[in-house]
Amino acid sequence: MSSSTRIENMQNPSLLLYGPKSAKYEDRPIPELGNHDVLVRIAYVGVCGSDVHFWNEGGFTKKVSTSSPITMGHETSGTIHSIGPLVSTVKPGDRVAVEPGVPCRYCKPCKAGSYHFCKDMRFAAAPPDGHGALTKFFRSAEDFVYKIPEKVGLDEAVLVEPLAVGVHATRLVDVRPGEKVVVMGSGTVGLMCAAVSKVFGAESVVIVDILEKKLEFARGWFGCETFKAEMGSSAEENSESLLEKFGLEDDGVDVVIEASGAASSIETGIHLLRRGGKYVQTGLGKPKIEFPIVALSEKELMVRGCFRYGPGDFELATSLIARGIIDAKALISSTRPFEEAVSAWEATGRGEGIKNLIKGVED
Amino acid sequence: MSSSTRIENMQNPSLLLYGPKSAKYEDRPIPELGNHDVLVRIAYVGVCGSDVHFWNEGGFTKKVSTSSPITMGHETSGTIHSIGPLVSTVKPGDRVAVEPGVPCRYCKPCKAGSYHFCKDMRFAAAPPDGHGALTKFFRSAEDFVYKIPEKVGLDEAVLVEPLAVGVHATRLVDVRPGEKVVVMGSGTVGLMCAAVSKVFGAESVVIVDILEKKLEFARGWFGCETFKAEMGSSAEENSESLLEKFGLEDDGVDVVIEASGAASSIETGIHLLRRGGKYVQTGLGKPKIEFPIVALSEKELMVRGCFRYGPGDFELATSLIARGIIDAKALISSTRPFEEAVSAWEATGRGEGIKNLIKGVED
Amino acid sequence: MSSSTRIENMQNPSLLLYGPKSAKYEDRPIPELGNHDVLVRIAYVGVCGSDVHFWNEGGFTKKVSTSSPITMGHETSGTIHSIGPLVSTVKPGDRVAVEPGVPCRYCKPCKAGSYHFCKDMRFAAAPPDGHGALTKFFRSAEDFVYKIPEKVGLDEAVLVEPLAVGVHATRLVDVRPGEKVVVMGSGTVGLMCAAVSKVFGAESVVIVDILEKKLEFARGWFGCETFKAEMGSSAEENSESLLEKFGLEDDGVDVVIEASGAASSIETGIHLLRRGGKYVQTGLGKPKIEFPIVALSEKELMVRGCFRYGPGDFELATSLIARGIIDAKALISSTRPFEEAVSAWEATGRGEGIKNLIKGVED
Amino acid sequence: MSSSTRIENMQNPSLLLYGPKSAKYEDRPIPELGNHDVLVRIAYVGVCGSDVHFWNEGGFTKKVSTSSPITMGHETSGTIHSIGPLVSTVKPGDRVAVEPGVPCRYCKPCKAGSYHFCKDMRFAAAPPDGHGALTKFFRSAEDFVYKIPEKVGLDEAVLVEPLAVGVHATRLVDVRPGEKVVVMGSGTVGLMCAAVSKVFGAESVVIVDILEKKLEFARGWFGCETFKAEMGSSAEENSESLLEKFGLEDDGVDVVIEASGAASSIETGIHLLRRGGKYVQTGLGKPKIEFPIVALSEKELMVRGCFRYGPGDFELATSLIARGIIDAKALISSTRPFEEAVSAWEATGRGEGIKNLIKGVED
Repeated sequence: MSSSTRIENMQNPSLLLYGPKSAKYEDRPIPELGNHDVLVRIAYVGVCGSDVHFWNEGGFTKKVSTSSPITMGHETSGTIHSIGPLVSTVKPGDRVAVEPGVPCRYCKPCKAGSYHFCKDMRFAAAPPDGHGALTKFFRSAEDFVYKIPEKVGLDEAVLVEPLAVGVHATRLVDVRPGEKVVVMGSGTVGLMCAAVSKVFGAESVVIVDILEKKLEFARGWFGCETFKAEMGSSAEENSESLLEKFGLEDDGVDVVIEASGAASSIETGIHLLRRGGKYVQTGLGKPKIEFPIVALSEKELMVRGCFRYGPGDFELATSLIARGIIDAKALISSTRPFEEAVSAWEATGRGEGIKNLIKGVED
Repeated sequence: MSSSTRIENMQNPSLLLYGPKSAKYEDRPIPELGNHDVLVRIAYVGVCGSDVHFWNEGGFTKKVSTSSPITMGHETSGTIHSIGPLVSTVKPGDRVAVEPGVPCRYCKPCKAGSYHFCKDMRFAAAPPDGHGALTKFFRSAEDFVYKIPEKVGLDEAVLVEPLAVGVHATRLVDVRPGEKVVVMGSGTVGLMCAAVSKVFGAESVVIVDILEKKLEFARGWFGCETFKAEMGSSAEENSESLLEKFGLEDDGVDVVIEASGAASSIETGIHLLRRGGKYVQTGLGKPKIEFPIVALSEKELMVRGCFRYGPGDFELATSLIARGIIDAKALISSTRPFEEAVSAWEATGRGEGIKNLIKGVED
Repeated sequence: MSSSTRIENMQNPSLLLYGPKSAKYEDRPIPELGNHDVLVRIAYVGVCGSDVHFWNEGGFTKKVSTSSPITMGHETSGTIHSIGPLVSTVKPGDRVAVEPGVPCRYCKPCKAGSYHFCKDMRFAAAPPDGHGALTKFFRSAEDFVYKIPEKVGLDEAVLVEPLAVGVHATRLVDVRPGEKVVVMGSGTVGLMCAAVSKVFGAESVVIVDILEKKLEFARGWFGCETFKAEMGSSAEENSESLLEKFGLEDDGVDVVIEASGAASSIETGIHLLRRGGKYVQTGLGKPKIEFPIVALSEKELMVRGCFRYGPGDFELATSLIARGIIDAKALISSTRPFEEAVSAWEATGRGEGIKNLIKGVED
Repeated sequence: MSSSTRIENMQNPSLLLYGPKSAKYEDRPIPELGNHDVLVRIAYVGVCGSDVHFWNEGGFTKKVSTSSPITMGHETSGTIHSIGPLVSTVKPGDRVAVEPGVPCRYCKPCKAGSYHFCKDMRFAAAPPDGHGALTKFFRSAEDFVYKIPEKVGLDEAVLVEPLAVGVHATRLVDVRPGEKVVVMGSGTVGLMCAAVSKVFGAESVVIVDILEKKLEFARGWFGCETFKAEMGSSAEENSESLLEKFGLEDDGVDVVIEASGAASSIETGIHLLRRGGKYVQTGLGKPKIEFPIVALSEKELMVRGCFRYGPGDFELATSLIARGIIDAKALISSTRPFEEAVSAWEATGRGEGIKNLIKGVED
């Protein structure tokens, strides 16, 4: 493939998206480093559902265009190549997982420890101008890269990002020891939320999906319970069947983590909850859905939105993988070379595998 | 009026609802008292929106029937008439506001301090068998009646109940000093939530309604800001106009308290919020509505349902009225005799007044 | 032994404490049951440090006397013998762990879900008139006994009580996943706190004691880290050595659970903490101690007192033992017959074993 | 006075402390500005107890020396003189209150929103090298200065700092609407905590001191209750008298804010609290004191240390003064010229006035 040839002569080869189904390998300048910045030599990039969506649609509400293409890739790992003059916590050669956004540090949310609400966040692969990790050299900051021990592979380190999503959601919904948790959807984020809920002391975790094959993987991965939702059944019916199966029909469950974004799944989740139950929405689907608002009121539920990750989430996710508490490696389904990134997006779009990886540029 | 004649000869005259537009004054047995029960000689009963709904529809999801009529009335005050053998905290003659539900004290929520989630709650005017306060003698428990000082009238004491709703909602949404609050809807509960938010230290409170007349009352009552929502405008447009009017277009507000139950108001409320904002649903309307779920996620909102009131809510509401912090008396629009309860419901149904009262049985 | 002979003829043989080193087996009336009460046929009673203190001193601030002796024993398990007329959640024959206190259900703390603050709590073996579990038939309430599965022995069920202490303390100090915890003191409560901290997701748990033998047991029990404090060293020195050993000298630890009550241990605990660290005091010692108050301020620590257990603590403790998450059985060191209760107290006083049990009256 | 003469010829006259009772006016370089820095032309500097302590002792644990003198002054206000190239939220001419510390923005606490725990904080008048505000041009950052409206004087703006201390303490101890609060000590910080507690909805606030004169000021300032503690009485006696005076002997108070640092006051504070009560230590005194640790346990108290101020504290303090909610101006007792700073310290050391100010360098 000619693109591969071209890559060999580039100083910073990068895969840019120009619109739906339109991507090109191009050379980009190597980023200059500020005082606390670091340059990461990218080792692996993971593919997530949003990459597929970008490939097919060109973005979500904000889209790329031929005049403002962006480098794709936001789940990533690599090795520190060089550092800014004031960097003191990492050094060239350190192997790291990378948090894909770096905030401004000067706005109100940054000051208050909600840096994920920063409006000037420089986020990887986010239009109009956030360049991502499908590149040779990616700029981050010393406090947004996380050292991993020797025993953890750089491929597995890519999974720190989706695990951080799970940590963030599980913290937001405040899973407490002894609680009964249901996770709607068994994609990567659903699996991560389920695993994190166990770490947080949940007494039981049930994963719900409509595909038996995915539930089988979930059971094999860490031995959680599963429930197959029926497409033809109403939210009330699916909820009732689940509660009966697990002997919870008198109370309902303590926590629902919604990780599919499907309207029927959201409604089922609300019906599953006990009075005073807690719910978090991690899945993204249609902008508006039919929502059982009176059930929210009568059961006095707490419903949380969930946006990316914030303080401490990458730290805990890195630690869980580093200590072997969560076996993230088992989720890796395939690894393709840098030059075949598009085929990784398309395979993911066809539902192949759990987590498909793309290798960084080879030396 | 013949019903009045009959009342004179009853030991415990009570107004029972048998179905939509069907109510009768009847004699009911004077309740027997358990160890910690108290018998309250009812002084006043307030009319709320749910009473009107019961009068028109016979109930919400659970309805009354000719075989299981219930005594109406749940906002009430009176004087302690007699007490159970172990009562130690009130005595006959004490003037009290009355919390209309008494929980079982033995279930899991009761033990954990969420008694409002008790499934065996004995709640006034709740089908199938919760008898209410439109009666001469009403049974409560010593810890669910609240002494009021001499300077507070028994009519004003009726307002402790809707104020407790406001306290509960404001606590759930966790209004903090310095925050900017918007209350959607300027009925009694909306007004109470607005006033309580001020007590909780809110920097600003804006009440939203579609009726200028109601907003005028709100401004006069305690000097809050108001915003008239336009019926013909979209949720986004109303939200944008409000934020512009108050110079909040860059961030949005910290807290929305929804006290109307209308779908358009709910959606407007969600759009008003800043990233990380907090929302509570106190108004009840249609069971399901169109809900902007992606906005919930992207702004990582906290949305709370809100059910009645729980531990400490009547205590604080009573204290706020007793200390003159909230002028609840100003909300009383009319007072009718016990025999004209139905006319009070109908007046309320026509939108007359803020809070219409019914007097207890005269001696 | 003559006391044993006497026991055979008693309907409800009980061991009463009359003062320091003065206890007698006597017959006591079988308690009458209220509506929600249950009568437990006692199977086992555990000995804790406070029993030893009572045996040596006759009580803490409140003491027993010859005119007001009390039945000893508060860690206990047994079988439901009979139930009050309204009991619906347990039935005769059920095997249960027993929470030793039953609150009044009518005071302000009870209503708010802090029943352990109830001043009218009927607590086992608490002067002046709380009779305990070293008896044949012990009265509790249906919501203060906890069913255990067949696979859990009634001897192990006694350990639910000290485990509930650990659950309560760990909840109060709010151990969060990923945090570094130090437990001062490796008695039963210290061990329980350490084990619960692990369940709550602590990244590391270090148990500190001055006796190597006890630390050896701790390591064997669930593989935590340990640190031997030096008697001759200052609090600063011990703190510094511990932090160095575990590579924490730059920050300090997130959480300290003090379970010894010794002044030097309390001070060491405070020095171990990072800025913003959390501390809970479960151990009881001298009423007043030297406390490094400026360190509290400068590091902005949170220090919690800890009193018994409250809502949900026995529930979680029972569940952790029932699911085999915590191996409480391993802590049982000896089991003596009912007639030899005093020898169990004295053995415990000599530091023999971790948890010594006393069997209930034999049939 | 010759120093005054010298000042006239300096570009950035500053008052440096070289040791106990040794201070000199010297010229210092005008600080260079980083991207987000601002240069403040100082208008006023307030004197607080720690300034007096520095003047008498040369510092606390860290002391100044002749080789590392520091510019004094940390409570301050002024006008923006110039700004760094990326500053967007303030402009030259803006009148501001100044937060005296600017954190590193890159460490773990900074990232998590606890910037006051930053070990690389650049704090005014803190040894060894934190230069303070008794200077002509003081460097801060755009997000650590707070615009004040025209109607607030720059003298009153100095009070934002001690008010922020009060906001921080009141937030840490989590004063909630309806709670009963006692503040130990009626210095500036004690007064601020009392006023903030009212804003947070406290039902009652009692200020305790041993000097009737100071209590008289407190009563006049915003009408709180006061209690004169007796020097000769024990902590238990003072606590009992206070509770009796206010009819709280059955329960105790919800919240104690300790703002004196005296050992007897700390102990009295602990005894005043109800079970489950909350306590915060703002006053600094001896490093170690006798502390009633068993009372902490038996009442399951929450005790918080309190260090300076953190996210949102200056924001709320500025807003409370800007909106006229707290009349800080009333606390200003005197204003001296820049050249007489030492006499302001000495007057404060003699207990003269509540808040003594020093003017900035005159043009």
